Amino acid sequence: LNTNVRWTLPAVCFVWQTAMVILFGAFVRYNKEVDAHWPETKIHENITSDIENDFYFRYPSFQDVHVMIFVGFGFLMTFMKRYSFGAVGFNFLIAAFGIQWALLMQGWFHHIDSTDGMIKIGVENLINADFCVASCLIAFGAVLGKVSPVQLMVMTLFEVTLFAVEEYIILNLIHANDAGGSMVIHAFGAYFGLAVSWVLYRPNLKESSQLNGSVYHSDVFAMIGTLFLWMFWPSFNSAICKHGDGQHRAAINTYLSLAATVLTTFAISSLFQKHGKLDMVHIQNSTLAGGVAVGTAAEFMLMPYGSLIVGFFCGLISTLGYIYLTPFMERKLKIQDTCGIHNLHGMPGVIGGIVGAISAAGATESVYGQQGLINTFVFKDDFKHRTPAVQGGYQAAAMCIAVSFGIGGGILVGLILRMPLWGDPTDDNCFDDEVYWEVPEEEDSADPVLQYNNHTVVNKHAEV
Amino acid sequence: LNTNVRWTLPAVCFVWQTAMVILFGAFVRYNKEVDAHWPETKIHENITSDIENDFYFRYPSFQDVHVMIFVGFGFLMTFMKRYSFGAVGFNFLIAAFGIQWALLMQGWFHHIDSTDGMIKIGVENLINADFCVASCLIAFGAVLGKVSPVQLMVMTLFEVTLFAVEEYIILNLIHANDAGGSMVIHAFGAYFGLAVSWVLYRPNLKESSQLNGSVYHSDVFAMIGTLFLWMFWPSFNSAICKHGDGQHRAAINTYLSLAATVLTTFAISSLFQKHGKLDMVHIQNSTLAGGVAVGTAAEFMLMPYGSLIVGFFCGLISTLGYIYLTPFMERKLKIQDTCGIHNLHGMPGVIGGIVGAISAAGATESVYGQQGLINTFVFKDDFKHRTPAVQGGYQAAAMCIAVSFGIGGGILVGLILRMPLWGDPTDDNCFDDEVYWEVPEEEDSADPVLQYNNHTVVNKHAEV
Amino acid sequence: LNTNVRWTLPAVCFVWQTAMVILFGAFVRYNKEVDAHWPETKIHENITSDIENDFYFRYPSFQDVHVMIFVGFGFLMTFMKRYSFGAVGFNFLIAAFGIQWALLMQGWFHHIDSTDGMIKIGVENLINADFCVASCLIAFGAVLGKVSPVQLMVMTLFEVTLFAVEEYIILNLIHANDAGGSMVIHAFGAYFGLAVSWVLYRPNLKESSQLNGSVYHSDVFAMIGTLFLWMFWPSFNSAICKHGDGQHRAAINTYLSLAATVLTTFAISSLFQKHGKLDMVHIQNSTLAGGVAVGTAAEFMLMPYGSLIVGFFCGLISTLGYIYLTPFMERKLKIQDTCGIHNLHGMPGVIGGIVGAISAAGATESVYGQQGLINTFVFKDDFKHRTPAVQGGYQAAAMCIAVSFGIGGGILVGLILRMPLWGDPTDDNCFDDEVYWEVPEEEDSADPVLQYNNHTVVNKHAEV
Repeated sequence: LNTNVRWTLPAVCFVWQTAMVILFGAFVRYNKEVDAHWPETKIHENITSDIENDFYFRYPSFQDVHVMIFVGFGFLMTFMKRYSFGAVGFNFLIAAFGIQWALLMQGWFHHIDSTDGMIKIGVENLINADFCVASCLIAFGAVLGKVSPVQLMVMTLFEVTLFAVEEYIILNLIHANDAGGSMVIHAFGAYFGLAVSWVLYRPNLKESSQLNGSVYHSDVFAMIGTLFLWMFWPSFNSAICKHGDGQHRAAINTYLSLAATVLTTFAISSLFQKHGKLDMVHIQNSTLAGGVAVGTAAEFMLMPYGSLIVGFFCGLISTLGYIYLTPFMERKLKIQDTCGIHNLHGMPGVIGGIVGAISAAGATESVYGQQGLINTFVFKDDFKHRTPAVQGGYQAAAMCIAVSFGIGGGILVGLILRMPLWGDPTDDNCFDDEVYWEVPEEEDSADPVLQYNNHTVVNKHAEV
Repeated sequence: LNTNVRWTLPAVCFVWQTAMVILFGAFVRYNKEVDAHWPETKIHENITSDIENDFYFRYPSFQDVHVMIFVGFGFLMTFMKRYSFGAVGFNFLIAAFGIQWALLMQGWFHHIDSTDGMIKIGVENLINADFCVASCLIAFGAVLGKVSPVQLMVMTLFEVTLFAVEEYIILNLIHANDAGGSMVIHAFGAYFGLAVSWVLYRPNLKESSQLNGSVYHSDVFAMIGTLFLWMFWPSFNSAICKHGDGQHRAAINTYLSLAATVLTTFAISSLFQKHGKLDMVHIQNSTLAGGVAVGTAAEFMLMPYGSLIVGFFCGLISTLGYIYLTPFMERKLKIQDTCGIHNLHGMPGVIGGIVGAISAAGATESVYGQQGLINTFVFKDDFKHRTPAVQGGYQAAAMCIAVSFGIGGGILVGLILRMPLWGDPTDDNCFDDEVYWEVPEEEDSADPVLQYNNHTVVNKHAEV
Repeated sequence: LNTNVRWTLPAVCFVWQTAMVILFGAFVRYNKEVDAHWPETKIHENITSDIENDFYFRYPSFQDVHVMIFVGFGFLMTFMKRYSFGAVGFNFLIAAFGIQWALLMQGWFHHIDSTDGMIKIGVENLINADFCVASCLIAFGAVLGKVSPVQLMVMTLFEVTLFAVEEYIILNLIHANDAGGSMVIHAFGAYFGLAVSWVLYRPNLKESSQLNGSVYHSDVFAMIGTLFLWMFWPSFNSAICKHGDGQHRAAINTYLSLAATVLTTFAISSLFQKHGKLDMVHIQNSTLAGGVAVGTAAEFMLMPYGSLIVGFFCGLISTLGYIYLTPFMERKLKIQDTCGIHNLHGMPGVIGGIVGAISAAGATESVYGQQGLINTFVFKDDFKHRTPAVQGGYQAAAMCIAVSFGIGGGILVGLILRMPLWGDPTDDNCFDDEVYWEVPEEEDSADPVLQYNNHTVVNKHAEV
């Protein structure tokens, strides 16, 4: 295998970025709240204050989501002792490409202005593009350390495309609700990634497994990712909700669910280790499961205790997944899941879909109010006669579609990625930044004591 | 002593989280700005735009506060060479529990809806819950590395309870102002933690003191905490201020006070070390003292130069505290204060209370305007005849109450924590993550050079 | 040379902070949106809701900018193996001083209230102060590791002063647009820093160059800085734009430009290294060039594809600058540019000025709308007869002024800094925290394995 990506990586980056420029030139314009004609729009639509521009409703949430995508996902994956550059660097690369491609794909499906055939973008599109990329970064977690940057770019290209189709079917055709994307983002992304990893199975990977672990400091770096994901998840789940009570409710439900998850994660982590010691892998990942699982129903009247219950069980299931299911999947199902995305995004995503279906089916006018029910579920236009019970059925169907799209798409894309074109690492090279990065080769240690004391030792043994 | 928390920690987490689910089910509902009936509320209350939902006034500040609680406090305490997991992990655990319990306790005191007896929550409650937890994390700083996670959970349970009582007395009965919580949060939390630490005094702790220090990288991690606390402190002090000028003024006062603190901290740190070298402990902690001390008066017409003066003296006093007072307290008063919370939260909190009392007593209608004076000090209803001078007296009383509650409550809770039930570490085990965490035991070093060069050395000496 | 700053550093900090207190007392007050008279102002100006206070338009952006200044710039410079304390610590010090001095200097030029001669401040002033300090931190990047904290304080004092003059000329006299400060902040700051570095040229610096490089973990720390700069750059460029479409458009243009830059940076980095390996220096720095270059035109109708094109070329030029231009400048021009600010701020800043001039000159009423054109370029009052073509000319002139001010001011300040008063390090001491910081001297390694296994080795060789 040739791991040299000197020609393929620049080629992919240049060609695709050039394509983006051309496609944006042909198809993408500002929407009316972004365009310099806004003063006229305000008069025309009788808007009295600049603060009623969607920018002020959504920009703070957008920035929080942006942090989750780039710092949250990026640093969560820095936990390995020798793959921090790859984790945070490739996360950066594929997210930067993915958001552009997502703006186009999602634009074609959702935001074509019928008057001129153009995609019109505003802050909500940026959030949706970040959301779409989240599903790619989830899938990245399954193959972390085992693929080349070129493979990641190819995977992202196809996954964004599939995501846009899946999203269109679920949100527009089926008219399901999925504010925080439990189904559309998390379940889809996770099963996609697991399917890719299954196709790319490496039977002899254990050889390099001494690199597949953390060191003390890399675990602390990973906690930066965990915490920014955890803290900003209320913004993630509320970012594209309806103005007013919708965003407010989604933020509170998510806050509560995540708090409960932390306690049950700590409980299970301690209970299932001898001597009751806590495992950083669980704390870094399972504490986030509550945010995934409350995604679909975040905008619903789940009630504070309902959110706590969702979080309670997800911390429990996710941590048990790390302890029992991940090893089982690797041994028996031949699915190597580097970051355990099945426990953090897969199962909680499916649970989120189920919670959404049940709570939609149980919605009543007495709880939501007449207008509230219509607003929350958008029982308008073609869907104005839909009842909550029927909505519940469609929510469940949406969940199945997300998982099916994930598995099917992942197998397909996995087969493309198996072609011997992409400079993927050998088994020996997995989880090692040396393959794709100039790693600093300094004489001295970073550690001040060792720098002074071990100097001789290091030099003496340098040739060994 | 048995440090195994395999049964106690999971038991505490499960039982308390289950209790939270039940209590939230019985007592907690959404307030009118969160509930799906909001469209009807808008019509009823003649609200014309969704943007006048409290969510849009406070959510950005809430997210900043949230970052301070989880990343700010968590990373500030990662400075020790071998206690970073405990710092950031236990911070995460007790904050996640504390916010739930605080929503209940504060709800019972402040947010009961008289029509149905339920606690009604919205974004302001989330902020207040985060505030309450801040006082627990301050206390955590005093006992960092010397207690088990079970002890921390017990401490948090009691401290949140006491906090809610103290807060009710100060804000409602005495009707004092404390926007940024100099008294209610910082002075209370600090003296509570110091009292606990005094009761749990470990006379032979010096033995393990080689772990009670930093390494180069852990000091850089701690700066992440310092900076996020420093940057977002304007949001902390303004988060629950009155809409409009109140929030605006609190943010500006805090911004200025903190800037001044940085300069005097650097000055003292350099002046009192031989060769004028700066000490990271001071930079990490004392630079924040200005934010604490401007808390009570943040919303007052303190004037820009007033804020600078507060910050000026707090940087000075706090740094001198680290140099002279902390060693004195450990030797003479038998108070072991791991993070020096007395210098960062205790003294500046008391100063903040005094600044608040003086600036309230000096408030005049010419400076505030007639309506401004009423708005800022809420001279309404039962308090409509109160004058600024009287208010100043009550502010001073509030400060004494906060400190008394802290010391009294801390001694009480300290005695509970001394019971030999909670799996606390031996003196040898203090400041060591090995006791409660699975610490990675890798063959190779995290450091790339050492990994390659020292390989033989490490292996050769592995059995030594 | 005497590197002891025990008297000079405290003296500078105390005297200047005292001066700030006095000057703020004499000159600075709250503006009407901050003052407690706001309820009266609302009635007087017929403002119906508190949310129309500028605080709610700009505070979220301000906080993002604040993070860029303190965490973004601070951590970006932690990449060196033994200068992380200096990077993040001195960044903190000079920014905290700079924002105070900038509030005064910018206030005198822009925000004097003619009724009472006072500077009236609000949230927009805080943003502008942060902006001004950004130019100082850019210059800091050129001299990183080679100057004392006292020199940095002196440099900041003069640079803020010059900045305020330059800004006044460009924004007020010439009436150029520069929303994100490509010219005013980046080009000025970069050429200022390069000129200082040229005056302070150290011919024998290579001796200590083994410290002028990164270690594995310090490169990960630097990525924290990179990502927070990258993510929040849309807030930087939109923070002081016009309410409504102005802020909205600037954020979107910046988001897109930065995304494109990432791909071309990865492409060039891989293409120009043997084996196609990526270089962390490029990923940390050049990925940000698109944000710099889109600054001037951020608020213009640059169109989404226009932003992508700007980002595309800047990633390319900036990365090539690191590969070819920085070594050339060091060898031939005797400019030692530690962080490569010429590639990240200098060239992209100039490009940004040119893009701004061209897009201003090409602005038409059909694209902007009649009112939009007036709003965007502020063709009002004295400038109401200016045409886009003329505006383009003034934009180009502004760029030349920024660069000239930078070079001229930098030479002047460099000469002041060359005086043997300021405790600057010897060539041997460059890039070493030992000179100005108490660096932890622990017995054991931070690394858990080495701590346990290498214990004997370390002790045995400790005297070597």
